[in-house]
Amino acid sequence: MIIDCHGHYTTAPPALEAWRKRQVAAIGNPSAMPRTSELKISDDEIRESIERNQLRLMRERGADLTIFSPRASFMAHHIGDFEVSSAWSALCNDMCHRVSQLFPQHFIPAAMLPQSPGVDPATCIPELVRSVEQLGAVAVNLNPDPSGGHWTSPPLTDRSWYPIYEKLVEYDIPAMVHVSTSCNACFHTTGAHYINADTTAVMQLIQGDLFRDFPQLRLIIPHGGGAAPYHWGRYRGLAQELGKPLLAEHLLRNVYFDTCVYHQPGIDLLTEVIPVDNILFASEMIGAVRGIDPETGHYYDDTLRYIQASASLTAQDRQKILEGNARRVFPRLDAALKQQGR
Amino acid sequence: MIIDCHGHYTTAPPALEAWRKRQVAAIGNPSAMPRTSELKISDDEIRESIERNQLRLMRERGADLTIFSPRASFMAHHIGDFEVSSAWSALCNDMCHRVSQLFPQHFIPAAMLPQSPGVDPATCIPELVRSVEQLGAVAVNLNPDPSGGHWTSPPLTDRSWYPIYEKLVEYDIPAMVHVSTSCNACFHTTGAHYINADTTAVMQLIQGDLFRDFPQLRLIIPHGGGAAPYHWGRYRGLAQELGKPLLAEHLLRNVYFDTCVYHQPGIDLLTEVIPVDNILFASEMIGAVRGIDPETGHYYDDTLRYIQASASLTAQDRQKILEGNARRVFPRLDAALKQQGR
Repeated sequence: MIIDCHGHYTTAPPALEAWRKRQVAAIGNPSAMPRTSELKISDDEIRESIERNQLRLMRERGADLTIFSPRASFMAHHIGDFEVSSAWSALCNDMCHRVSQLFPQHFIPAAMLPQSPGVDPATCIPELVRSVEQLGAVAVNLNPDPSGGHWTSPPLTDRSWYPIYEKLVEYDIPAMVHVSTSCNACFHTTGAHYINADTTAVMQLIQGDLFRDFPQLRLIIPHGGGAAPYHWGRYRGLAQELGKPLLAEHLLRNVYFDTCVYHQPGIDLLTEVIPVDNILFASEMIGAVRGIDPETGHYYDDTLRYIQASASLTAQDRQKILEGNARRVFPRLDAALKQQGR
Repeated sequence: MIIDCHGHYTTAPPALEAWRKRQVAAIGNPSAMPRTSELKISDDEIRESIERNQLRLMRERGADLTIFSPRASFMAHHIGDFEVSSAWSALCNDMCHRVSQLFPQHFIPAAMLPQSPGVDPATCIPELVRSVEQLGAVAVNLNPDPSGGHWTSPPLTDRSWYPIYEKLVEYDIPAMVHVSTSCNACFHTTGAHYINADTTAVMQLIQGDLFRDFPQLRLIIPHGGGAAPYHWGRYRGLAQELGKPLLAEHLLRNVYFDTCVYHQPGIDLLTEVIPVDNILFASEMIGAVRGIDPETGHYYDDTLRYIQASASLTAQDRQKILEGNARRVFPRLDAALKQQGR
């Protein structure tokens, strides 16, 4: 089985975005605020948006199942207040749930959280609970910078984040550390902000001792871990300067990197530097980079090809990256698959 | 010859830091502000600070000459106003000049600029002129985020930076894009802010068309280009989505990456992905990562070892990385060396 642990519903029917535009326009004008019940999207519209896009490409490329969360750049936690984020999160999470109900063999949901800058992360718990208990979410996306590129929240090791971690541990689900749109002109969303956030999160986790407090917590750093694997010597050396244990102990019992690295040399480095048990197959398809690489004739984000072509991986390594590790890191996914007889 | 294009005076005699502390303490209290003439450091003190540190390691490792600029984390452009940055820059640049005079075979200066958040970059021109014309600087360090981790300046492609680029082109000197200390708790200075800034700068340059306006401008992205080479497929793909030319044309006629990547797999990726003509040997020694790698028994930042060990490089490639490219990218360095008969 091939499990893609990082997909977003980037192709949702246009009515979703139209609703969001009405919501954003109504900020500060409660009488104009649309109700969530006003969003009307039929099952057929959802089917079409998936069959023509993600499912088509999954079939072409050979992926069986995608862990599917709301469009990352549309989370836009910096817009509005908690109420705005809360209504928007609920709608987006419902959409991914519906996809998973319509295509139970191919999609399983992960949830976004109703984060808002300056608002206590504990306010996200009710939606987290609903997503897991009612929508079947097997993971959440946690935004380390709800301000959208201004980085006004404390580091992920700060105690204000602990209520979320406690709930993740209670449910035995991981979080993917994933920012949203940048509203800072310095940072291109998918070319700088995403990658910087990944790098930043790794370094915050090195500086802190979060996993001493949460030995069962599992965090996924997407986009191949940002810059961290490329600079693994720097990070090993900085951990050493800070008097921390070796990264194998300090980080790699709890932290996983996905394979959203869009060329062969990057995947080769990732699989050389990071233990195979800490690597999760992912493509983030259909996402930031949708074109065909003129150097290969294949889609940049067809990351399965790079993993298949990686000379250093054994068949057992590939099985771990493509399926085994995901079943371990997302136990609720494993349970759902077993219930399906898979 | 082996030229290290990225060294900082991290071991300056303590009187320099003591002066800085007095300066910072006197902000808002002009009568307490120390004069630059109050800093007293003897040639012997400078000799000792260099001989015991950088020069000792250069001899042990085999580097002949270092392009030497003020300590990056101490630039701290976010502290005080233009006057504060101006006095501090002048002192620090003078120190590197003195090092180069005392060790003309081993050090040549690069300058920091008196940047200050929210202040027109054009105000840096007088110190840039002084550094080149009077101190012999062969390059400058340009901070894309003088706020120290709040990213309040416009991207490097913004016209407000143009006066600096005009002067760089006039003098035919490159700039290394290098941030300073982070005062944002989210970003560890050398583990997140430095690497993020490198990645951010690359993406800003991809988004813009700076080199259409400045075809002769040369920028060096330190620390192996941040995350960019590891994610080169992403950057090639994003350039394609933005309708830009291939990166070979759009970026690599003007942008160079140094080799401050502190493990073999990182250097192997860099040399595989980035054309050899765009790679400059550097160690940033004595810098962020001062320890010995338990996996190799050698200093993490002894990057010469990785370049020597890189299986894919020919002797000619190594000559370019270690010397040839530096002579081309820093023509004033080349001229100075030729004057010395080297």
